[in-house]
Amino acid sequence: MKIIEGGVCAAKGFTANGIHCGIRKNHIKKDLSLIFSAVPASAAAVYTTNLVKGAPLTVTKNHIADGIAQAVICNSGNANTCNANGIEIAEAMSDLTAKALGIRASDIIVASTGVIGQPLCIDPIAAAMPALVEGLSTEGGKDAAVGIMTTDTVMKEVAVEFEVGGKVCRIGGIAKGSGMIHPNMATMLVFITTDCAISPAMLQKALSGDIANTFNMVSVDGDTSTNDMVTVLANGMAGNDPIAEENADFAVFMKALNTVTVDLCRKIAGDGEGATKLLECRVTGGKDIPTAKTVAKSVICSSLLKAAMFGADANWGRVLCAIGYSGADVDVHKIDVSFRSEAGQIDVCKSGAGIPFSEEEAKQVLLRKEIEILVALNDGEADATAWGCDLTYDYVKINGDYRT
Amino acid sequence: MKIIEGGVCAAKGFTANGIHCGIRKNHIKKDLSLIFSAVPASAAAVYTTNLVKGAPLTVTKNHIADGIAQAVICNSGNANTCNANGIEIAEAMSDLTAKALGIRASDIIVASTGVIGQPLCIDPIAAAMPALVEGLSTEGGKDAAVGIMTTDTVMKEVAVEFEVGGKVCRIGGIAKGSGMIHPNMATMLVFITTDCAISPAMLQKALSGDIANTFNMVSVDGDTSTNDMVTVLANGMAGNDPIAEENADFAVFMKALNTVTVDLCRKIAGDGEGATKLLECRVTGGKDIPTAKTVAKSVICSSLLKAAMFGADANWGRVLCAIGYSGADVDVHKIDVSFRSEAGQIDVCKSGAGIPFSEEEAKQVLLRKEIEILVALNDGEADATAWGCDLTYDYVKINGDYRT
Repeated sequence: MKIIEGGVCAAKGFTANGIHCGIRKNHIKKDLSLIFSAVPASAAAVYTTNLVKGAPLTVTKNHIADGIAQAVICNSGNANTCNANGIEIAEAMSDLTAKALGIRASDIIVASTGVIGQPLCIDPIAAAMPALVEGLSTEGGKDAAVGIMTTDTVMKEVAVEFEVGGKVCRIGGIAKGSGMIHPNMATMLVFITTDCAISPAMLQKALSGDIANTFNMVSVDGDTSTNDMVTVLANGMAGNDPIAEENADFAVFMKALNTVTVDLCRKIAGDGEGATKLLECRVTGGKDIPTAKTVAKSVICSSLLKAAMFGADANWGRVLCAIGYSGADVDVHKIDVSFRSEAGQIDVCKSGAGIPFSEEEAKQVLLRKEIEILVALNDGEADATAWGCDLTYDYVKINGDYRT
Repeated sequence: MKIIEGGVCAAKGFTANGIHCGIRKNHIKKDLSLIFSAVPASAAAVYTTNLVKGAPLTVTKNHIADGIAQAVICNSGNANTCNANGIEIAEAMSDLTAKALGIRASDIIVASTGVIGQPLCIDPIAAAMPALVEGLSTEGGKDAAVGIMTTDTVMKEVAVEFEVGGKVCRIGGIAKGSGMIHPNMATMLVFITTDCAISPAMLQKALSGDIANTFNMVSVDGDTSTNDMVTVLANGMAGNDPIAEENADFAVFMKALNTVTVDLCRKIAGDGEGATKLLECRVTGGKDIPTAKTVAKSVICSSLLKAAMFGADANWGRVLCAIGYSGADVDVHKIDVSFRSEAGQIDVCKSGAGIPFSEEEAKQVLLRKEIEILVALNDGEADATAWGCDLTYDYVKINGDYRT
């Protein structure tokens, strides 16, 4: 398995594009993206668990109920959520896209991201559709990745190449994240494409199994979004024998998918709103997986710890505090805590109590861009990892004045 | 019932003091407080639910197991938590105080607040004890209130006068709050005193019943502290017939206690770390109380909404979003949302969808220091209120560099 270029266009038969259509009035930023498969593809998706759901999610859910889709249309700048005409607009986006591509509207995945509660006008999308479709190309993955960005500061894409049944397969993805991201749902917009042949049922199984350890273990700010989803299109053009059961090929596919999703998780967390640092909490020795996951998520979600990491302050008491209120069944007196980065590792807490360490050395470890918070529960064999970011002045700045 | 001056010294027989003993090396800020009752008092307490508990909580719990206490000793600047010798130090604080006051060590309530995981040296406390006791006076409530402050910017005290069985009673309290404050525990340090005669069992019943609607409905940052507790001392010096059952007198006492606790909740939330605004979320029309409470707490805890309130941005979509992921069983399409302050009220969402409103008018409403977020669930008769504050640059600043 190797990392390759190409994002969502890395796999055979996929083209993409991203343009500025005018939903964002005062920006030249791209705000409309399209991903297209030359042939209908197996489709799978997971959605936010928020009771308030964006209209596009309802429409998408209907469209892929048959396990088949062929294109993804997504706008940024407006979430099309909590609007009286939301469903109507999402259907219109779908119809316009289907017509321009010459495919069925029921094979379209629709997504929107941006401000909640402002009616989305279809006009700029309608006007831009011909140019959007015209510009589809195998070089368009980066443009599509840019078109779905909101407060993201960097475009996020990845692709890997692997082999199934002697055939070269590829899987790639793009993501937008940044704010309103929290475990227990399909935390953000992620569109994944592959040319591996796999049945819709097995594709859904792979995706649902994977996100429990990846996107659901990411938190930027504890707010679960209304609009987010992860979708996968698998068009089978790699020519492998279709994966239709949990065999060795399925295991290889799961591994490739996980490589893509973990990469995107790290990119999303590291580019959290205002973030200056990626935080990775690695919990080991939990009595069971749910315990290890609960601990990892609680640590990554602590505002106090996130602020301390911003200040490169080895305030490990906040790690213990976050474990203590997590609700997980742990023995506090068995817990060890260390911080690690490219600059080295510093042990700060042993058996639930502080141990002497060099503040200067700790500072050096914590001044790096990627920080691992190592928590050993010493109470079993279960491990878990969660990803987050620091809490900074810029998070407040971005969210104190988002709409204006 | 009327609000009066005097804080923890408003009730008969209580004296207090607060001094700088030197736990905070580089500050002249007071860091040691003492509250003393002339006679042994009924005692009740509630404690943090964090599995990681400060050593003082363990000692206090033992001391008031018999329902009796006579004094409160509390230091700030060090939490005495996650230290190998924590219990020993908390017992030593207790012993020193008891000896200086000439009372039993088992009648002392001990508390600490500050940094976690740094050993607390008993020497400055021992050295300062004679002066601390010497300085006890009925004028000392404010000094005691200052002595327990950490990142608080204002001293917090309140007192009320009421009548039980023809006797004038008083109840007063001091609090420290600011950071690491979140529902589902005894969220902060609060010391309440009263001269009302009430049995230990009824005092505990009153306190436990009250905090479910007061301190457990306050959140500054979602972090549940390791050290916090609320205690009440009732010395009976008002001379009323002791309250020993749930009668009319008990109801009057509950009301007086609630007046004190709600006032302190508002002061704690409004002085949250870095806060510029007090947020009060008033939920009406829930199907039941737990639903209304869950919704109120979720709204008050949303980082995104808190940042929007800092920016005086009427981003009501974030209110709906927070309700949607709260886990409460609500019908999103029935929800109305308004913002209210001294500048007026602005309705922003009706039946789960946005309604037109003047952004300028909304700005004027949200620029005030106390903001009410009104959520009508229109689904029943249950109401709940939660208190919080905005998320600001200063929260990040305070917590990015707390220890140094």
